[in-house]
This record gives sequence, C-alpha cells and structure tokens, in this order.
Amino acid sequence: MTSPSSAPDTDWLDRVAWNSQGLAPAITQSEDSGRVLTLAWMNRESLAATVASGYATYWSRSRAKLWRKGETSGNLQRIVDIRLDCDNDALLLIVEQIGGVACHTGRESCFFQVHEAGRWVTRDPVIVDPEQMYGLHE
Amino acid sequence: MTSPSSAPDTDWLDRVAWNSQGLAPAITQSEDSGRVLTLAWMNRESLAATVASGYATYWSRSRAKLWRKGETSGNLQRIVDIRLDCDNDALLLIVEQIGGVACHTGRESCFFQVHEAGRWVTRDPVIVDPEQMYGLHE
Repeated sequence: MTSPSSAPDTDWLDRVAWNSQGLAPAITQSEDSGRVLTLAWMNRESLAATVASGYATYWSRSRAKLWRKGETSGNLQRIVDIRLDCDNDALLLIVEQIGGVACHTGRESCFFQVHEAGRWVTRDPVIVDPEQMYGLHE
Repeated sequence: MTSPSSAPDTDWLDRVAWNSQGLAPAITQSEDSGRVLTLAWMNRESLAATVASGYATYWSRSRAKLWRKGETSGNLQRIVDIRLDCDNDALLLIVEQIGGVACHTGRESCFFQVHEAGRWVTRDPVIVDPEQMYGLHE
C-alpha cells in the first residue's frame, strides 16, 4: 500500500462497527468442507493480528487476551478470506482448518448439538482424542 | 412429546447460555449453497417461535421485537436444522432460503464485503433489485 503519510492505514479497521466492548462476533467457516466451525469474538487488535499473521486470532473474553486459535492444539486456522456483513458488525473468516478439527472436543465443528423434538442430540464423530490433541502440546 | 406433567418441556431452551441481555448470536447458513447468510440474535421467545413455526424468527435488537425473517420481503428461511455450539452460547440454523436472497441489498448473503490489502471490497452480485423486493410487500 502507498500512502501520502507514513501513518498506517487503519480505515478498514475503523469500518467495523465494534460493539460497546470494542468487539464483533466472528464466524469461521471451513473452505474445504463448508462447515461452520466456530463463533468467536474479535477486537481491533485481534483483527489486525489476523491479517498481519495470516492466521485466525481472536479475543478471548474469558481470559481477556489475544488468542491465536490452535496455539495449544496445533490446529491453526489459515486465513483464505475475511468478510464483513452489510451493517459492518459481524465478520466471517473462511479458513483452511489445520488438522481438520476446530472444537476442543476433537470434532470438526463446535456446532455438534442438534435440536430434535425438544432435545439437543450430540451428532458428529470425534475425529481426534482431545487428550491426545492437547497432551502433545502441553 | 410425552411428559409426566402437563407443563411444557423447556429444558432445551434452558440449555442455551443466554447472555446478560437474554440473547444468543444465531448464524444462518444456506443448506443449498453452503453460504453463511446472516448473523442475527435470538432470545428464548424467538427460538421457541422458530421451532414452533419452522421458520427463522429472530429478536430485532434495534426494534426490540420478534422478527420473522422475510416477513416484509417474502424471503423466509425454512428451518432444516438447528445446532448449538459446545459451550451452548451460539446457535447455527441450516435453512432453505426462500427466494435465494437473505440480504436487504438483494444479495444472497449479507457477508459481501471482502478484505483485500487494507480495503473492504464489495463482491457478490445483486440478485434481486431491493426496491422490487420490498416494494412488492409494502
């Protein structure tokens, strides 16, 4: 990018309608399978880090810190596309899910509970044993 | 459903970890194309109405009322599946998008702005003229 001043161009970060906590929900979808993998949250810093690194980096609300997805499990999410919705308050990341597993339970997607006649039924196979997934990196 | 008491079984609604405003984000995905269409919000009442009617019904935060998607445009979303994520605080609706258009701009998906080198670039064609889409029903 060329710019008349030396200040970094952050207009694209200002375009996002961050909520009162400075956050926006970020949906992540697998380019390969088309599955919606996760819903997480981003702030300005995490979105900037995502673009700079090429890997999905969220804001952990529980730990109040930046969180590069897969930093413990190795299951990083390589960015293919970042999209913004029509009212600028939600993000969609299209990613290559390294290892094929986004959920801490060892499933591809976190959305594995399906509503059936007044119950949430667990579907979707466990692909990787969670103990193995985290044990290798801790 | 059979139940020993006559009280309706709402355990499945209690399972959702509604936030401090009683809401949860709801991602909606097209069964047909696989595209993520929208991110909207639900409360207990809207999730119950979605299941009862078979059509996506959200909570409009700006209008503070239930909002059956497509009630003005005719572009209803017929429910195929409702999924809940691993920490119970986000919903995923798999739908048949009637009319093929979810966005008020006349595009299939609301996520039509794509990040390219520090800019948000509008991609995705307008499928239906928005004036026509809303004019027919207003």
